[in-house]
Amino acid sequence: MSGVRRFKPDYRWEEIELLRYKAEESVTFKDVTRQLLFDSADLGCELRYFEVASGGHSTLERHQHTHAVLILRGHGRVLIHDRVFDIAAHDLVTIDRLTWHQFRAAADAPLGFLCMVNKERDRPQLPSDEELAALKRVPEVAAFLGQ
Amino acid sequence: MSGVRRFKPDYRWEEIELLRYKAEESVTFKDVTRQLLFDSADLGCELRYFEVASGGHSTLERHQHTHAVLILRGHGRVLIHDRVFDIAAHDLVTIDRLTWHQFRAAADAPLGFLCMVNKERDRPQLPSDEELAALKRVPEVAAFLGQ
Repeated sequence: MSGVRRFKPDYRWEEIELLRYKAEESVTFKDVTRQLLFDSADLGCELRYFEVASGGHSTLERHQHTHAVLILRGHGRVLIHDRVFDIAAHDLVTIDRLTWHQFRAAADAPLGFLCMVNKERDRPQLPSDEELAALKRVPEVAAFLGQ
Repeated sequence: MSGVRRFKPDYRWEEIELLRYKAEESVTFKDVTRQLLFDSADLGCELRYFEVASGGHSTLERHQHTHAVLILRGHGRVLIHDRVFDIAAHDLVTIDRLTWHQFRAAADAPLGFLCMVNKERDRPQLPSDEELAALKRVPEVAAFLGQ
């Protein structure tokens, strides 16, 4: 419905629930929350806000759907396929379909980001042992994932 | 393509062109720029960044498509149908279909905002003289539009 929902302290918003990152607790991620900012039936996409606490990380995963990300808060790094990038506030991150990716917050700051995705989308895939071993053949990736 | 595009000074981004707000100059808006941040063929929506210079305003318009807006920079006010709201960084603004709306930056600061819209969308409609007169029957709206 038309209107304004106010930004509140600690990167919360009026009328928006703080959600678990995923339905189940898992060793595949650490200290991540999720807020669904826009989810209109009239829109083909959703806009979500994820926040990774300092030292935390999202799941290493891939899927058919594309991620369009704008960093809103803090800094950290992102793994995209076999490359690691430093990221900071307002940088844009594109993750194409079927591309392994993981976000990690810095040790001294949270990493908060907006993520636009299609409303209709597939479920994430986790790497097999073989796929994980292949990723780790790149020393930079092994160091990133080993943290 | 997967990767990171850096945020640059003055709310610009790597590889992203600064565009005119609309194709034609017009008296219906003042001092607005547009940058298309995400426009992937794989996504049902686009994410754009608009910036209204201090004292400027967007077009008063309505359309069939919904706007999902997150204020990224500065502050100002937005008209939504017959109400005026103060807006500041990180507030969320929803504008439903066929709802008159206009953004105005404060006199002392630009107003920059992200706007998510469906890739397939209709063209904006401008108010007729009668529709404008009807809007201005609300004193708060008349004061907003008269500035």
